[in-house]
Amino acid sequence: MNPNKPSLHFKLDAHSGEARAGVLTTRHGPIETPVFMPVGTGGTVKGIRFEELESTDLDARIILGNTYHLWLRPGVDVIRAAGGLHRFIGWDRALLTDSGGFQVWSLGALRKISEEGTEFRSHVDGSLRFLSPEVSMEVQAALGSDIVMVFDECVRSDASHEETERSMELTARWARRSKQAFEQLQATGADTGYQEVEGLSGTQALFGIIQGAGFHDLRRKSLERTVEIGFDGYAIGGLSVGEEKSVMFGVLEDIAPQMPKESPRYLMGVGTPEDLVESVARGVDMFDCVLPTRNGRTGQAFTSRGKLNIKNAQWTKDSRPLDESCGCSVCRRHSRSYLRHLYMSGEILASILLTHHNLAFFLDTMRGVRQSIRSGDFPKFRREFTERLSANGE
Amino acid sequence: MNPNKPSLHFKLDAHSGEARAGVLTTRHGPIETPVFMPVGTGGTVKGIRFEELESTDLDARIILGNTYHLWLRPGVDVIRAAGGLHRFIGWDRALLTDSGGFQVWSLGALRKISEEGTEFRSHVDGSLRFLSPEVSMEVQAALGSDIVMVFDECVRSDASHEETERSMELTARWARRSKQAFEQLQATGADTGYQEVEGLSGTQALFGIIQGAGFHDLRRKSLERTVEIGFDGYAIGGLSVGEEKSVMFGVLEDIAPQMPKESPRYLMGVGTPEDLVESVARGVDMFDCVLPTRNGRTGQAFTSRGKLNIKNAQWTKDSRPLDESCGCSVCRRHSRSYLRHLYMSGEILASILLTHHNLAFFLDTMRGVRQSIRSGDFPKFRREFTERLSANGE
Repeated sequence: MNPNKPSLHFKLDAHSGEARAGVLTTRHGPIETPVFMPVGTGGTVKGIRFEELESTDLDARIILGNTYHLWLRPGVDVIRAAGGLHRFIGWDRALLTDSGGFQVWSLGALRKISEEGTEFRSHVDGSLRFLSPEVSMEVQAALGSDIVMVFDECVRSDASHEETERSMELTARWARRSKQAFEQLQATGADTGYQEVEGLSGTQALFGIIQGAGFHDLRRKSLERTVEIGFDGYAIGGLSVGEEKSVMFGVLEDIAPQMPKESPRYLMGVGTPEDLVESVARGVDMFDCVLPTRNGRTGQAFTSRGKLNIKNAQWTKDSRPLDESCGCSVCRRHSRSYLRHLYMSGEILASILLTHHNLAFFLDTMRGVRQSIRSGDFPKFRREFTERLSANGE
Repeated sequence: MNPNKPSLHFKLDAHSGEARAGVLTTRHGPIETPVFMPVGTGGTVKGIRFEELESTDLDARIILGNTYHLWLRPGVDVIRAAGGLHRFIGWDRALLTDSGGFQVWSLGALRKISEEGTEFRSHVDGSLRFLSPEVSMEVQAALGSDIVMVFDECVRSDASHEETERSMELTARWARRSKQAFEQLQATGADTGYQEVEGLSGTQALFGIIQGAGFHDLRRKSLERTVEIGFDGYAIGGLSVGEEKSVMFGVLEDIAPQMPKESPRYLMGVGTPEDLVESVARGVDMFDCVLPTRNGRTGQAFTSRGKLNIKNAQWTKDSRPLDESCGCSVCRRHSRSYLRHLYMSGEILASILLTHHNLAFFLDTMRGVRQSIRSGDFPKFRREFTERLSANGE
C-alpha cells in the first residue's frame, strides 16, 4: 500500500483494564470504537432505511456488506456500473465487506475445498461458482469497501484438533495470497468502485482473520502467522458458531492480550448485548451480528431488562413501550400492545419497528460502553448493565 | 349532534369548473382538499412509518382505518384499552374509518344478509360474526375516528337494475339506522376512544354513502335518500369495483353536480393518479385507494411518466431514480438498479421504498391539483399531467 495515502487510522484514547476506546478513521469518516456494525448482507440492513441508520437514534457509522451475497446477486458488473457499493446502495459512510469464506461454509451447497479455493453451488440460482483469495479480493476491490476481509476457511466448532489445524493452516496460506492479491489491486489501481480517484492505491484497508476454533495453541499459532503477514486490523473468526460461551471468552482472554495493541480487533459475528460488553472487557474493538435485525423480524426485542417476545399474550393491552429506558423513536411512539398487534397481523411495520428498536438498543449500548471507558466508569457500567439484563422485565 | 361543538368544518375557497379546493377542519387538524387518504386498514399504512407519513415528503393529513379489520383484530377491547385508535397506533392526525360494509362484501366468507345486518365468518379465525349499522357505529365510536362512515351494502358491478335497487334501498334504510345509532352514541357520550373529553358529543362526523352502481336513476334516488337523512359529508361508493372507466365518470358527471355544494364529497376506493385528477375535475374532494401501497409491495412504481415495473431487466444497471421529476427521499437517494436488486432479492426495503415513493407521488399530485385550482391553472395542470403520464418513460 501507498504509505502516503493511509486507508485507515486507528487511535486509542482510553483504557479500562483490557477494554479500549478509540477512533477508527476511514475515508468515509471517523468511527468511535468499540463499535457495533449492523449487517447489510445483500446491500441493505434488512428492514431499515439508510436515513434511519444515519439518524441520531442509531447513528451507525459503519455497516457490513457481504462479498458472497453481492457477488451472486446483483453481481459485480451491476455494482461496478454504479461506481461501487457505496454508490449502488446510496450510503456515504464506511463499509466493511466480509470475504465470503464464512458464507460459502454456512450456505454453499456441495462445497469442494481445495488448496486453490472453494467450489460451490450458488444458493440463488444453483450455478457452479468458484471463490478463492484472488477472486474475493477482486470482488471486494470492485465493491470498493473501506475494510476488506481476507478469504478464510471456517471449521465446525466440534472439529478435531487435527482438522482444525489443517483448516487454520489453509486460512494462513489464503491470508498470504489475499494480501498479495490485495496489494496488487491497490498498487495498480485495478478495477475499483472508486471512480472518482485515480486508481485504488491505498484507499482500502485489509484485515486478517485468526482461526483455530477453541484450541488455544492453534489460535496462538494462527495469530502469529497472521501478524507475520501484516494487516491493517485483526479479526477473530470462527467463534459464536455453536461452541459454549466459556470457550469464546476463554479464547478472547488468551488471544486478545497477544494481539497487536495498536491495531483494531474485530470479533466476527458476535453477539448478544451481554456478549458485546463482555468482549469489550476482554479487549475487542469491533463487532457485527445479525441478532438485532434477524430477531427483530421474528418478534424478539432486546431491551435493557432482557429479551422480550412481542408475540406473548401478556402484551395484548400493555401500553408501555418495548423498553421504558429507551429513547428511540419506536419507544417514544408505540406501545407493546400495538407492536404485538402488528406482529400478529403479519404487518411489515412490525419488522420495521422492532428492527429499529433493536439496532437502537445495540448502538446505544455501545455508546454507553465508549462513554464509560472514557470516563473511567466501565466496570460500573458493565456490572449495572448485566444486573439490569438479568432482572428481566417480562 | 351538538351544534355548539361541530365536529367538522368544510370551507371551499376556489373553483375551476366543477373542480373545488377547500379546507376540511377536523379536531385533528386541517386538511386541504382535494385530498388523497392513504389506506391504513389494520392500523398501519402498510410498509411505511408514521414519521414518514408526517414528513414534508408526504405530509398525509388523514389516513383510513377499517372497522371490519380492526374489529376482528386486535378487537375493540384492545383499542378501547389504549384510548381509541389514534392512541393505539400513535397517530395524532385525522382518521376516517370505513364502516366494514365493503369488506364484509369483498372478504367475508359465507355472508348472510338480512334486513337486520350481515352475518359472516371472520377471515382471521373463522368465527361467526354479525355486523349491522348499530354494531358498526358502536365500533367506530370506540375507535374514535374523526370521520365515521355509515354501514352500507355493495352490489356486483354486473348486478341487474332490480338487484341494485333492492340493495340501494337497503343501504338507505341502514343509513338511517346508522345515523340514529351514531347520534345516540354522540349524545350520550357512550363508550368512546376519546378518554380526554367528557363523552363523545359532537366530536365525530358521519358521512353517508350513495350507491346504485352504474344506474343513474338509482344513483339519483340514492342521493336524494341520503341527503334527506342528512350527513356531514357524502361518499360515492360502489365504483371502481370492476366496471368500465366510462361508467364511473358517467356517474360522477351526473351525480356530483346534484350533491350538496357545501359538503365534502368522497369517492371511495379510487383510484389511479389519472382517476384522481379526472374525478377532481368532476367535483370530488376526497379519495382513498390501496394502489400506491399495494402496488408498491408488488414492485410497481407510479411516476409522472406512467407506471414502472421495477422487476424489468431493463433497469438492471439504470442509475436513474424511479421518477426524474420526483423530489422524494427515495428518488433523491436510490437508483432503479438498486431498487430492482432489492425487489429481486425479496428484501423488505423494496416494499418500504416503493411504498414511500408511490405515496409521495399520489400526495404530490394532489398538492399540484390543489395549487392549480387555487391559481386558476387546473385545466393546464390536468392536460399536462395526462400528457406526461401517457408519454410513458419506460
